[in-house]
Amino acid sequence: MTKPLLEQLIEALQCLPSVGKKSAQRMAYQLLNGRRSKGVLLSDVLKQAMEKIGLCQKCRDYTENEVCSICSNPQRDKQLICVVESPSDIYAIESTASYSGNYFVLQGALSPLDGIGPDEIGLPVLAGIVKQDAVSEIIIATSATVEGEATAHYIKSLVHQINNEIIVSRLAQGVPLGGELEYLDASTLSLSLANRQTI
Amino acid sequence: MTKPLLEQLIEALQCLPSVGKKSAQRMAYQLLNGRRSKGVLLSDVLKQAMEKIGLCQKCRDYTENEVCSICSNPQRDKQLICVVESPSDIYAIESTASYSGNYFVLQGALSPLDGIGPDEIGLPVLAGIVKQDAVSEIIIATSATVEGEATAHYIKSLVHQINNEIIVSRLAQGVPLGGELEYLDASTLSLSLANRQTI
Repeated sequence: MTKPLLEQLIEALQCLPSVGKKSAQRMAYQLLNGRRSKGVLLSDVLKQAMEKIGLCQKCRDYTENEVCSICSNPQRDKQLICVVESPSDIYAIESTASYSGNYFVLQGALSPLDGIGPDEIGLPVLAGIVKQDAVSEIIIATSATVEGEATAHYIKSLVHQINNEIIVSRLAQGVPLGGELEYLDASTLSLSLANRQTI
Repeated sequence: MTKPLLEQLIEALQCLPSVGKKSAQRMAYQLLNGRRSKGVLLSDVLKQAMEKIGLCQKCRDYTENEVCSICSNPQRDKQLICVVESPSDIYAIESTASYSGNYFVLQGALSPLDGIGPDEIGLPVLAGIVKQDAVSEIIIATSATVEGEATAHYIKSLVHQINNEIIVSRLAQGVPLGGELEYLDASTLSLSLANRQTI
């Protein structure tokens, strides 16, 4: 005997992050109870998204087209490339509305022990873009983790092997806005002391 | 221009209860990043559930069959009927493993001001069952709200009109297990004083 459809639904909903059995139950019951058309819509969009969304040929961001909307936007500054680890980072930077260049998504970070080398994070594609386009600056916005730092250094040497005149920069590190010193970790604090700026 | 599929997905995911924009984003990115087959499975199950799950002809619980698994189980005691407001209540009672009778789901509670009368909560179906089957007891497990109480009284008089010998009972009310008296509300406390039991 196959499982009742309701139980199957409750199980399937648990593939969503931070959705356990209780939340899945509540979701299933609420969908059945008056949100059926929205449930069908979600099902359709979900299937399409899972099957059609791939990586942009230029920047490796998620898109259902060959080239994503940012890469194909003529308004964006193609001389600037911001290198990020994941597509959600693009979303975070876009929401600041203070960057108008292009992006490049690594979809990860260098981690040789896990078998993630330069090829896995698309660095040959990035090298191709640097060679082809008139890139003037690469802003590296990888995480402030060991892997992120290693990736940043690797990209810097890669870019400078191709063209030594391209500026390679890194997001500023220091005290976050609204951050209180007493709650800040020692490493960040010592870093912001070392990198103090004249005002 | 239509919206990018990723944005459509993030919007559609927000039809789930307590999923806002941030959670929907995280869900979408995590599904795209390595959980695609699970996403497709969820989409399929969701669509089937939304289209096929209806109400059991006997007890009005959710099921994709004509009669639900509880009603069609010959092991269950058909003389006992527990009346609940919603299918999730059945789940709660079943998880106690201390009830082996049948259920009847009102899918709501009497609320004349909202246009919910006896017909909307399926009382004619319940009356039919009481007339046809050899029911010996009706356990009313509606919520301890004004609507729940009103519904309980209505069902009691309905059942007694049909057959005065059927026992109509209500879930015991009082101090919950592990409940500390100092945090209990005054109404519950006065109720449990009034209904005190000799030990």
